[in-house]
Amino acid sequence: MDRTLTLSFSCPDTSGIVAEVSSFIAQHQGWITEASQHSETELSRFFMRVEMRASSFTFPAEEFGTRFTPIAQKYKMDWLLSDSQKPRRVILLCSKQEHCLYDLLARHVAQDFAFIVPCVISNHEDHRKIVEAHGIPFHYIPVTPENKDAAYRQMETIFRQEKADLIVLARYMQVLDAQLCRNFAGKIINIHHSFLPSFAGAKPYHQAHRRGVKLIGATCHFVTPDLDEGPIVEQDVIRVDHSDSPEDMVELGKDIEKVVLARGLRAVVEDRVLLAGHKTVVFR
Amino acid sequence: MDRTLTLSFSCPDTSGIVAEVSSFIAQHQGWITEASQHSETELSRFFMRVEMRASSFTFPAEEFGTRFTPIAQKYKMDWLLSDSQKPRRVILLCSKQEHCLYDLLARHVAQDFAFIVPCVISNHEDHRKIVEAHGIPFHYIPVTPENKDAAYRQMETIFRQEKADLIVLARYMQVLDAQLCRNFAGKIINIHHSFLPSFAGAKPYHQAHRRGVKLIGATCHFVTPDLDEGPIVEQDVIRVDHSDSPEDMVELGKDIEKVVLARGLRAVVEDRVLLAGHKTVVFR
Amino acid sequence: MDRTLTLSFSCPDTSGIVAEVSSFIAQHQGWITEASQHSETELSRFFMRVEMRASSFTFPAEEFGTRFTPIAQKYKMDWLLSDSQKPRRVILLCSKQEHCLYDLLARHVAQDFAFIVPCVISNHEDHRKIVEAHGIPFHYIPVTPENKDAAYRQMETIFRQEKADLIVLARYMQVLDAQLCRNFAGKIINIHHSFLPSFAGAKPYHQAHRRGVKLIGATCHFVTPDLDEGPIVEQDVIRVDHSDSPEDMVELGKDIEKVVLARGLRAVVEDRVLLAGHKTVVFR
Amino acid sequence: MDRTLTLSFSCPDTSGIVAEVSSFIAQHQGWITEASQHSETELSRFFMRVEMRASSFTFPAEEFGTRFTPIAQKYKMDWLLSDSQKPRRVILLCSKQEHCLYDLLARHVAQDFAFIVPCVISNHEDHRKIVEAHGIPFHYIPVTPENKDAAYRQMETIFRQEKADLIVLARYMQVLDAQLCRNFAGKIINIHHSFLPSFAGAKPYHQAHRRGVKLIGATCHFVTPDLDEGPIVEQDVIRVDHSDSPEDMVELGKDIEKVVLARGLRAVVEDRVLLAGHKTVVFR
Repeated sequence: MDRTLTLSFSCPDTSGIVAEVSSFIAQHQGWITEASQHSETELSRFFMRVEMRASSFTFPAEEFGTRFTPIAQKYKMDWLLSDSQKPRRVILLCSKQEHCLYDLLARHVAQDFAFIVPCVISNHEDHRKIVEAHGIPFHYIPVTPENKDAAYRQMETIFRQEKADLIVLARYMQVLDAQLCRNFAGKIINIHHSFLPSFAGAKPYHQAHRRGVKLIGATCHFVTPDLDEGPIVEQDVIRVDHSDSPEDMVELGKDIEKVVLARGLRAVVEDRVLLAGHKTVVFR
Repeated sequence: MDRTLTLSFSCPDTSGIVAEVSSFIAQHQGWITEASQHSETELSRFFMRVEMRASSFTFPAEEFGTRFTPIAQKYKMDWLLSDSQKPRRVILLCSKQEHCLYDLLARHVAQDFAFIVPCVISNHEDHRKIVEAHGIPFHYIPVTPENKDAAYRQMETIFRQEKADLIVLARYMQVLDAQLCRNFAGKIINIHHSFLPSFAGAKPYHQAHRRGVKLIGATCHFVTPDLDEGPIVEQDVIRVDHSDSPEDMVELGKDIEKVVLARGLRAVVEDRVLLAGHKTVVFR
Repeated sequence: MDRTLTLSFSCPDTSGIVAEVSSFIAQHQGWITEASQHSETELSRFFMRVEMRASSFTFPAEEFGTRFTPIAQKYKMDWLLSDSQKPRRVILLCSKQEHCLYDLLARHVAQDFAFIVPCVISNHEDHRKIVEAHGIPFHYIPVTPENKDAAYRQMETIFRQEKADLIVLARYMQVLDAQLCRNFAGKIINIHHSFLPSFAGAKPYHQAHRRGVKLIGATCHFVTPDLDEGPIVEQDVIRVDHSDSPEDMVELGKDIEKVVLARGLRAVVEDRVLLAGHKTVVFR
Repeated sequence: MDRTLTLSFSCPDTSGIVAEVSSFIAQHQGWITEASQHSETELSRFFMRVEMRASSFTFPAEEFGTRFTPIAQKYKMDWLLSDSQKPRRVILLCSKQEHCLYDLLARHVAQDFAFIVPCVISNHEDHRKIVEAHGIPFHYIPVTPENKDAAYRQMETIFRQEKADLIVLARYMQVLDAQLCRNFAGKIINIHHSFLPSFAGAKPYHQAHRRGVKLIGATCHFVTPDLDEGPIVEQDVIRVDHSDSPEDMVELGKDIEKVVLARGLRAVVEDRVLLAGHKTVVFR
């Protein structure tokens, strides 16, 4: 894999942005391998993502940021520059269910998309062995009504020590507190086992069963202090019928939960997800 | 197509039901072409559907009902017997949008599944020509805040005169009144343009756009006096993304609306849909 | 709907193309509403599509072509400029099956995407009434082994007289001859009722049934002299099982045939489909 | 979970089979929790699967087989009786790719459906650690052109020693020899990374990329001496587009490969798959 630089930004919409950005790149012989853009009419905001071969530029890749800054300032961009040589550090949180954890570990081993797992944190000991078999540290942090605050502060310390770029709730069955949500805003993604906004909250498959829906879903979203209300990154559904009990749905749903979470994580890790108010722009 | 009899029923669950029903059929040389069954644990209720070749029985098809009655009574069945020689009479209601109407007319012409359209009713004149080109009577019944009650009573008269087995709201943009819903309970199906229970009520695609969901859906359900709360018959979804405006969703959604409505109608017409409380059993 | 100009092109890949095109547009105050691009590595070819508000330019929309020509020549572009005020002229060909015809007529009435139907041609009289009810001329041109050549020449004359931009085989059950395929290369699209390359040729659902596949499909492709071998524009599938006969598949398949054909047509009509050798680039 | 007995069979079609089977069950107070049936017209063969509560019978579950034998003989049934207390023994074969292995291990840990993994066999050492972390023996059996025959005989010995009910090729990159295929006919399932019959053989994603298809697929099938020609158990597809390289397809495809293989395995393990010539009946 060639080294790539990925520039992603949003800014107030006006004419000439693409021209200026692409001219800057062309002037320095930059080779664009992928580019996507979107104008959000309601917000009058422009979104763009450009992937470039690092070696194609006439200057060292390290200088891109400094050189691009004047353009970013001119257009008041909210921007991010990523270097494929510095893959994201993604901490996984899990509880007893294993499907999302195993799925992400398999992708990590295969390096289907580039990410590092500095550690796994769980409120149960169940998955220590499998995690450590990958040479990944496993932190057991039980969460009880009594120790809740201490537990979350301990996690926060780990997040900072490990310089986490992202935290993934891989079917982690505790609700993070508001302080964590605020301090790591835009850095925590969750998989909820329903097609939001239907069946937010507890036991969504039981809710779905009671309503008699013919499809069940899963939703990957950013975590905010409002439970299950964060910006949606990815969703999918699977067919069920009258013969499926809530327990059957729990099992069937696993296949979409893990795939939706992985797709969402991949998109975030590759800077394909840009926040647009309480919604997301997700470049394919 | 051979003439078939279709027996469908639900009854309190107990052992021996299948044995008794299938023995009755076997005794009279009946040939089963399709059979499905389901035990609903929560309701302790048993559901079954059997399709049989009418000509295989040792007695005339017309006698099946009388002969089966003792079994139906023994098990306290809620039962229905259908004869393929008497296809269902289905009245279509539409407004300005054409996609569901055209779709159902095409299926009617092809006789993909057997149904008769005694007439089409609309609160707009737009589709008179296409309906009448099929030799189907078209009734224009405008509905305004002032004439609402009279309009619905006029429809009710037509429903009765035409001996409608089913009424299909094919994107009919008026809310039927409680009297109609009650008098034709279990006989009216609607297509709602969202994946219920999300986005019930008005302008669901606009609601979906505001929430930033990544899939939009359609739901075919029985009409009850509680708007969009009736038992769900069929649902499906289609992928959207950040670039789709509410108007794009309106257009994209048409493809699932018409397919979901048609699948729901077909299932109902073929006696594959049995009510189980406020849910449905839908035999494939 | 605002008037839009759509520029689409492909050319040998090199750096600076996007910069030059977007700078040209920005210089003249052009407002880009949508843009997509793709680099085809194997062919070393670059593909782009840009949609712009016609009224945003400092010059009349009519001058865009002349002014853009030098850039097109510089990069050896194979290019097309479309004006939303001149919708495509699409001739529909059908036989006895009605589902694709009705579906396209409904979309034409709704103007979901902009196209004109100058006429419908069929080798059967079945659909004259419904076509004419839309004010669209209907040509009955029977095709027999004896008159084949004359029939196709008659069609060719109509295609030219009507200035057809596109010809759609909407389940037209005759194989066009090589002369038509050559003379209208890139202008004829077909819907084949299988997931190509599986089950090319005759009776694909029967082939699918024999092989015992668990999904059946439909493929929209450009027509070339090699039957069912043309570049693929769009595909989709639907689930079947052991209980579905070939006849059931014929019926179930209709729902994907019509949707796949319509999606393909829309993409072509909106200049989203660019030929890349014997494959297609389809911009979403 | 209650202990269940599952009876599945096929036999020449005739009237009275369901009556006789269900009467036998009812006579002994058997409680049916699930039942499915199918008449295969072309083969004139009847297929049935019945799941029953073991404790509901008036006789010990162990006697079911002996008592049912006369009925089985009368109708010339090809039949199987399974007891949920004796879960299937499933040997997994893998190579370097990890996605299917991890996926099946996660399901095994969760016991989503009941199966035992007596051992894993691989022609590479890569996954020893993760397998052994589950307490499952790992056999490294390299396969080279020279030792092929010895390797397969070694596997065959293991299959027999471990009393394998099923062998799953979880992206095992060697072609089993004819002797293995014959000796374990109906007991080996494979996941092929294409939507068969398209793209059989080597490098299916590269073949798919060359043809420019818009969906890629995966197929779970029984292994026979004819490569990729065995009866199909399950299939699914995923959308791709022009921007996806063969390598992208390899990665995207993993998500359907693992899900299709797991669904296929589950159906086989639960006796939902019955052979019907070179096709399968798969009861939902």
